[in-house]
Amino acid sequence: MLIRTHVGVSLDGFMATPAGLPTWDLMPTFGAGSHGYAELMEQCGAVIVGRTSFDQGFEDWLKGWPWPGKPVYVLTSRPLPETAAEMGVVASQGGPVGIVAQVRASGLEKDVQLLGGPSTVRAFLEAGALDRLGMVVLPVLLGTGIPLFATEPTAFSQEAWTASLAAPAATNPRSRLVLEHQQAFPDGAIHLVYRPESRRDR
Amino acid sequence: MLIRTHVGVSLDGFMATPAGLPTWDLMPTFGAGSHGYAELMEQCGAVIVGRTSFDQGFEDWLKGWPWPGKPVYVLTSRPLPETAAEMGVVASQGGPVGIVAQVRASGLEKDVQLLGGPSTVRAFLEAGALDRLGMVVLPVLLGTGIPLFATEPTAFSQEAWTASLAAPAATNPRSRLVLEHQQAFPDGAIHLVYRPESRRDR
Repeated sequence: MLIRTHVGVSLDGFMATPAGLPTWDLMPTFGAGSHGYAELMEQCGAVIVGRTSFDQGFEDWLKGWPWPGKPVYVLTSRPLPETAAEMGVVASQGGPVGIVAQVRASGLEKDVQLLGGPSTVRAFLEAGALDRLGMVVLPVLLGTGIPLFATEPTAFSQEAWTASLAAPAATNPRSRLVLEHQQAFPDGAIHLVYRPESRRDR
Repeated sequence: MLIRTHVGVSLDGFMATPAGLPTWDLMPTFGAGSHGYAELMEQCGAVIVGRTSFDQGFEDWLKGWPWPGKPVYVLTSRPLPETAAEMGVVASQGGPVGIVAQVRASGLEKDVQLLGGPSTVRAFLEAGALDRLGMVVLPVLLGTGIPLFATEPTAFSQEAWTASLAAPAATNPRSRLVLEHQQAFPDGAIHLVYRPESRRDR
């Protein structure tokens, strides 16, 4: 049982426009099941949804439930609407590690789709609870929007560079990743699936 | 004659650490000519260097000139050190469009490597003077550093999302790109070469 994301990002790193429209939706070639999504749905037997994504999508999902027969867990500290409970949606307060334990305890054999925005993806990454970081790099530049990764940008400074040459410090990346799968699509989108190096498959 | 970049970025979009160390240098597998650099050197008969990169690298390059026999142009409004002129380095004040015209007027048949940091790459992109955006996505997350692309991050807001549903506006990406080449390396780095859709080859 592996926890997998499948997020679409622009080449400059945005998951969505400033208004929250997924970058996917800017691609005329994007459709139901495209860009590896159908394969992901095949692999996964349950879904974990971040609360922001749940609130953004729920009304729309009610028009045609995207995960019939699959348990849906929502990571949240607030109660869900009553209609959600009627659809069998489970609210989980345990955070990334707790929710993964909860899904595992259910005896699920297939993988789990993690559906969420930047804070959900990052929370799972940081908790060591994400097994596969799957993303589709879309061939567009947005320039502005909601980025997948938090950025703490610095500008180049000759002084900082000179100082670092005089006193070299260990520079390790925050984390290393292992590329497990890559596939280019005819529209120029690229599907990349990474395993955080710290993860071992269970 | 095509203007080409070949930049290494972390999966979270950083070209360098906060001190200015190129992300390449965090890869134990990175070496002279690796990750498509030798092929780029073959393709290119001249080099355009941004002033910040020039100032960062020049002293080091003097120990073993990286571009013997190839003209080197520096995009700058300030005079170069005297030793640079002795090495045949040309200072050009014309901005991206002017420097490209200058190189073209020299009758060069091969392509041109554009070596620079974020502001140089972006200036060429925005001026429509970059023919190929070549980048190698390295399988590391830095979390902080010098990003390739300017980011104007927004957080998701349910209000902005609801407002956008009520009054949908045209949402076009800043630019679309055509993926021309992709190659995965054994270390999990991926070489991607894009052509801005607005560019026609000459």
